[in-house]
Amino acid sequence: MIYTSDSLKQLIEEFSQLPGIGRKSAQRLAMYILKLPNEEVLNIARVLVNVKERIKYCESCWTFTEENPCNICASPKRDRSIICVVEEPNDVLAIEKTNEYKGIYHVLGGVLSPLDGIGPEDLKIKELLNRIEPNVREIILAMNPNIEGEATTIYLTRLLKTLGVSVTRLARGIPIGGDLEFADEATLTRALEGRVAV
Amino acid sequence: MIYTSDSLKQLIEEFSQLPGIGRKSAQRLAMYILKLPNEEVLNIARVLVNVKERIKYCESCWTFTEENPCNICASPKRDRSIICVVEEPNDVLAIEKTNEYKGIYHVLGGVLSPLDGIGPEDLKIKELLNRIEPNVREIILAMNPNIEGEATTIYLTRLLKTLGVSVTRLARGIPIGGDLEFADEATLTRALEGRVAV
Repeated sequence: MIYTSDSLKQLIEEFSQLPGIGRKSAQRLAMYILKLPNEEVLNIARVLVNVKERIKYCESCWTFTEENPCNICASPKRDRSIICVVEEPNDVLAIEKTNEYKGIYHVLGGVLSPLDGIGPEDLKIKELLNRIEPNVREIILAMNPNIEGEATTIYLTRLLKTLGVSVTRLARGIPIGGDLEFADEATLTRALEGRVAV
Repeated sequence: MIYTSDSLKQLIEEFSQLPGIGRKSAQRLAMYILKLPNEEVLNIARVLVNVKERIKYCESCWTFTEENPCNICASPKRDRSIICVVEEPNDVLAIEKTNEYKGIYHVLGGVLSPLDGIGPEDLKIKELLNRIEPNVREIILAMNPNIEGEATTIYLTRLLKTLGVSVTRLARGIPIGGDLEFADEATLTRALEGRVAV
């Protein structure tokens, strides 16, 4: 295939490296960029560079942040007695979107996965244990509902129970807007097990 | 929703402006960028800026190019007696991908669309007419198969026929790999009309 420009070809290649973007989307994105005003493209480039320069890990909860500690850890409005443990920084964003949770977070940076060679020492587990002071009364384990997430939840539950702190996990069941007919057996089983009085 | 970083929020906003990228994809892309090595992100930023600095319109066929004329117009291997008229520069890429077409192109920069206020004077139609010299024997009209594309094809056909040049259009029919059962009536009608002897 002949491209009429090398830099266009390069841009399409850069875009198609991104997750979830195939060759055709990359081409469409590149054409879109070409039609944007110069100013706007410079701005995108600037934001990209800024993000990498400014963003670090919060040394308390290990989410992405520009300041240390992050604005959740630093906020006086947050309830420091509840810590929600998640796998990745985007899980923090997902929970923040609910506007329901008022506690603080701890990002593990992954899950236990022996097949990929990821053990407890590769995650921020030691850092989590160090944060469990007498004022902490609850740890919410909010791993993803898959095998690695389950294994990590079980591992952390055992570890945390020895410290005498209350450990909870997210409810599992039929998703809102979901349909019983299309729910898989595992989800339906959990929904039955977790039934509540009305 | 609280973001733990302003520059992260900005990046997610920039990504969600792009076509075909919603809020969730934008968030995933931003997280991916944060995990890339610095070097790689700087490179993406550089390619973005380069593209805008270097790419212009070819003053002969009006596709995107770094040099003027573009490498298709400049190539001695191309057959200058056939001009394929397309809507946008990405249509040139699409046709080049077939490796079948050896003629040259002309990019209109859009289609006639009275509802959007786009008339003949907004497209590179005058420039197309200027390119029709005695050695040009065929004009292929390769507009998209929708109402605006059809209208543009009809308009150009009338205009070009007065110049005594042969005007053709792309064949319409069942797409390769398609299924008769799932083809819409309009496509099937065209396929019947355009049937060929075997």
